[in-house]
Amino acid sequence: MTTDDSVQVSVLGLGAMGTALAGALLESGYATTVWNRSAGKADGLVARGAVAAGTAGGAVRSSRVVVVCLLDHESVHEVLDPLTGELAGRTVINVTTTSPAQSRELAAWAERAGVAYLDGGVMATPSMIGRPGASILYSGSADVFHECGPLLDVWGTSSYFGEDAGLASLYDLALLAGMYVMFAGFMHGAAMVAPAGVTAGEFATRAAPWLAAMTSTFDVLAEVVDGGDYTVDGQQSLKFSSLDDILAASSDQGISTEVVAMVQRLIHRQIDAGHGEEGFARIIESIRQPG
Amino acid sequence: MTTDDSVQVSVLGLGAMGTALAGALLESGYATTVWNRSAGKADGLVARGAVAAGTAGGAVRSSRVVVVCLLDHESVHEVLDPLTGELAGRTVINVTTTSPAQSRELAAWAERAGVAYLDGGVMATPSMIGRPGASILYSGSADVFHECGPLLDVWGTSSYFGEDAGLASLYDLALLAGMYVMFAGFMHGAAMVAPAGVTAGEFATRAAPWLAAMTSTFDVLAEVVDGGDYTVDGQQSLKFSSLDDILAASSDQGISTEVVAMVQRLIHRQIDAGHGEEGFARIIESIRQPG
Repeated sequence: MTTDDSVQVSVLGLGAMGTALAGALLESGYATTVWNRSAGKADGLVARGAVAAGTAGGAVRSSRVVVVCLLDHESVHEVLDPLTGELAGRTVINVTTTSPAQSRELAAWAERAGVAYLDGGVMATPSMIGRPGASILYSGSADVFHECGPLLDVWGTSSYFGEDAGLASLYDLALLAGMYVMFAGFMHGAAMVAPAGVTAGEFATRAAPWLAAMTSTFDVLAEVVDGGDYTVDGQQSLKFSSLDDILAASSDQGISTEVVAMVQRLIHRQIDAGHGEEGFARIIESIRQPG
Repeated sequence: MTTDDSVQVSVLGLGAMGTALAGALLESGYATTVWNRSAGKADGLVARGAVAAGTAGGAVRSSRVVVVCLLDHESVHEVLDPLTGELAGRTVINVTTTSPAQSRELAAWAERAGVAYLDGGVMATPSMIGRPGASILYSGSADVFHECGPLLDVWGTSSYFGEDAGLASLYDLALLAGMYVMFAGFMHGAAMVAPAGVTAGEFATRAAPWLAAMTSTFDVLAEVVDGGDYTVDGQQSLKFSSLDDILAASSDQGISTEVVAMVQRLIHRQIDAGHGEEGFARIIESIRQPG
């Protein structure tokens, strides 16, 4: 990793993620200016060498590269719109979580304002930033991605998806969707075993390695999806995956069945359409075609 | 691993899992008799040294330990009920996927018949049997679990949950629930990025390590659940986890929102009950209390 410590960077937004991003920059020797709407958030970073700006405008004026990590799309506009003049000619790397449409809107806004714009999606918790396993997805300006490469690599593994600024957000949200749904599945399992006296912590010690191991089958499911033929041999059939046992056991434990019933609806729509002998991977067709 | 090759074992049911279990026994030197309702399934195992029995009764009579790996609870009774007399005094290790209530019913049936009964839940795909990562959960007779330990360890890591024969099934189904729900989440993500030209295979190469990494946060969620105080610091709040961005992006991509909407319903029920500032782990309360 090469560090260019002549680069001045400003970070707008010091929530847990913005603080982690600024901290990693400081540790790599970048001259880092920070700003947060409410005071006090910068103190820890200042103790580590950051300069705290009193206003967002002050932070923007002090650096060529402005990293934006705010609450949402609306707050990005609230903070940046009054600074359009100051931002012209600078680079904005926006890692605020936004929808693909919002990222594209911000890219168009930046183009009109003469701002080089790179959109990022952080696939990591704040504590993972700058450590193995942190992955950050980018799309938008290829020039920014390449010029700021050493800076971006401070945070984690950087991947670039293309000039369409919405692509990183789309990928980000798709991965987050998988995460939230997995969390709901974990919580359902924990709720199932709880009445038998199993703590959530005990369940986690088994569920974490089990689900981590099962992610290794994603590529098998994906190969069937990409091949487009759900009748290929070696798959578990939809009929075999009815989930009735899981739903019955959940009801017996007195808990809601809605988490697993969601998966069963995807399965049943395909069985009802005459595909019961085909593979489980076919549930993606239930998702592709809204009911 | 100690192998007692004087133990005769029979395996009833030669689907993919039964075949894998029998194959692992053969490789470890156990004298293994196999039986399947439909013919032909035993051929590969016979070539590896197994004895094929023409009837389930023949298989039962040839071994002290009978491993049962059939389609479901009903098929276990169909095969074993006519053999009650022959089974008396023998050991049944039943790894057929059943509900906790069905496992308890089979354990009661076995007790009446003078059969020592151990119930198992296989947390592995057939190809994982006998290899690292395969985990098998047991409950029922502690004597059988200890006496047959070397045999059970041939298949994977063995865990014993207690004399209540339903516990292994409950744990098994809870872990399978997590898996199926995770698969639905993966498929949702793949469906989201597909319209942007991303193949399911490409998405899998990112989703698998991402979700595997995120399983490491289960213990953090679990600690909050077990602590019972969802207001502790350092958590992502329910209000911050509204998932509106993911749902909007899914709609924009023209796909169903039902997979993620399931998670959002769990979140919204807690927000509506006044807990929006509390941590995401609180979604388990939505599952514990059916709506």
